Amino acid sequence: MTDAPTTAPVARAATAGEVLAGYLTAQAGVFLRALPQAVGEAGSRPGALPASAQAADDLLRAVRRIGGALHTFGPAFDPVWAQESRTELRWLIDLLTQEPGYRRRSDRLLGAVDSLADTAPDGAGMLAGHPGAPKARALLERQLTLARTRSHTALLQELRSARLHALADRMTLLAGELPLEPEAAAEPAVALLPRTAAALAALVAAAERLPWQRSAQAYAGAGLHRLGAAPADTVPVPRGAGDTADVALAADDAPWLRARILVKRARYALEVCSAPDGELLELDRVLGHHQDASDAAATVAAAARTPRITPATAYVLGVVHADQRLDVEAARYAFGRQWPALAPGLAGPAAVASD
Amino acid sequence: MTDAPTTAPVARAATAGEVLAGYLTAQAGVFLRALPQAVGEAGSRPGALPASAQAADDLLRAVRRIGGALHTFGPAFDPVWAQESRTELRWLIDLLTQEPGYRRRSDRLLGAVDSLADTAPDGAGMLAGHPGAPKARALLERQLTLARTRSHTALLQELRSARLHALADRMTLLAGELPLEPEAAAEPAVALLPRTAAALAALVAAAERLPWQRSAQAYAGAGLHRLGAAPADTVPVPRGAGDTADVALAADDAPWLRARILVKRARYALEVCSAPDGELLELDRVLGHHQDASDAAATVAAAARTPRITPATAYVLGVVHADQRLDVEAARYAFGRQWPALAPGLAGPAAVASD
Repeated sequence: MTDAPTTAPVARAATAGEVLAGYLTAQAGVFLRALPQAVGEAGSRPGALPASAQAADDLLRAVRRIGGALHTFGPAFDPVWAQESRTELRWLIDLLTQEPGYRRRSDRLLGAVDSLADTAPDGAGMLAGHPGAPKARALLERQLTLARTRSHTALLQELRSARLHALADRMTLLAGELPLEPEAAAEPAVALLPRTAAALAALVAAAERLPWQRSAQAYAGAGLHRLGAAPADTVPVPRGAGDTADVALAADDAPWLRARILVKRARYALEVCSAPDGELLELDRVLGHHQDASDAAATVAAAARTPRITPATAYVLGVVHADQRLDVEAARYAFGRQWPALAPGLAGPAAVASD
Repeated sequence: MTDAPTTAPVARAATAGEVLAGYLTAQAGVFLRALPQAVGEAGSRPGALPASAQAADDLLRAVRRIGGALHTFGPAFDPVWAQESRTELRWLIDLLTQEPGYRRRSDRLLGAVDSLADTAPDGAGMLAGHPGAPKARALLERQLTLARTRSHTALLQELRSARLHALADRMTLLAGELPLEPEAAAEPAVALLPRTAAALAALVAAAERLPWQRSAQAYAGAGLHRLGAAPADTVPVPRGAGDTADVALAADDAPWLRARILVKRARYALEVCSAPDGELLELDRVLGHHQDASDAAATVAAAARTPRITPATAYVLGVVHADQRLDVEAARYAFGRQWPALAPGLAGPAAVASD
């Protein structure tokens, strides 16, 4: 039923197909309403920054939720259609997150430099009065503005591309006629619970493998000195022109970034079932800080490789890099404070539901 | 009584003068036995490093204890003699601590660079493979070796100086004929307790003014970004050719360094009274780490101002500087974990004894 309210409890007499259709139709509606606004604003004048932030946010939220549901409840859908849709939604997520990511990174890094270089008498920073601070700030601002402009241009182009139009058509089709597998769709709605439980179990398994016991002790052991070994099942990390340390840091961060994806999938799966997501939103936020700090640190390391910078600039970038890695550690510590209390609640229902 | 055992409980029927004479005579004995060995070894061949480390350590331990007792139990001594003695002992402490300080700083900083630059597959460092790491390491090693050699030369000169001979004579006099104020010396030994309580109270008062509540939350608030304002009663900090940040950092660290002096005074006062020092030794150790990290950070900041270093070198020094400041934060955090449990025990007996 396409007009089923998305908040309908799974327990209500309904089929799995009806619940999924209700949820996805609502999200596709958000997508289709937000898209013209995002395109229109973005295209209104060249170089306009930002595109309608609210419309782009709405678009991103819908895209993430649709992609998550297609992943978690995969067997209920036509497999070819679901796989193609997920690929296209992933492409749009990458496109939509780039520019806001650079904006957040700019705010974070320029804020860090300003704070470190602050000369206020009631709390001078570690780099107060350092001659390299204004130079490092200007360098970071220049490079991040350039990256932001480029990602904005790419967004503008793609928002008018045939590929996006095809995705919009796909969403229109979804809202009217969701390609469900008949057998799975006809099952009672409670059949969605084991899949939701599996999404939670995947999160629990990944989170328990994270070295948060190390991070649960503040400033413990290694500190900045030494990163843990990358687990064997770490997802491969794209690398640029960085050095060994960049690769090592990326490998160290990868399981945490992966955990964030699993947190989001679990959140959206619970949303489909109209179940409360407990503290997953807070965990998502903490892991978001982890990712932002990790990305920012990588940006600073890359900026330090800019040719012909002064030693003073490079020194300040070294301090800022370490500062961002400290924020990475702080996010892991925050995770370690939240997770042990949260995990039993997640593992419990999951175990029951899988029976 | 010069042959009174130094472990005699204060409660034993004895005068305050007897307890002080027993303690100081024993310490002066250590001083006089260690001195020729320290001088002899140091002078045996030019540039010999280290002088007999054990003898120098023994000497330093005795000097600190004598100076502490003269301060805490000041009214029991001839005031001119006590003041002169403390000045000379302070001079010797500065002389004896310089070279070991540079040695520890060298170990700490080169170890930090090595760890940060480690390429081991089971835990690569944040600076693994960074081209600036070997250069920064060589720069720090060169500068610290130079400083160490200079302080060793100064120590060699002063160990043969008339000033040291005069101090040794003073210690010989002390062992035979401690210049006590007759009235105070004739008091019962329990008269030492209020002075010991005052030493503990001074520590409690200073420690409670430290911003350890801020540091008690790991990674809290400012992190590396912003230092607290220096309290109004901060002891002045000598400054070199540093910039605003050096002054701000020094002001931020000063109350913690001051607290360490008070911990040592309290420890030695309890030792005079043959009282257990509880966990003060552990607190001394934590504040020692604080001081070492603070000194090391200042050394790195100074090294980064070396003319004509490469940007890569400067960048690595920036990371190492921030790393050492993180160790400063970690020491404050450790203090904040120990202090609240320790303070009531210290404040309690002190309050009672002062009644």
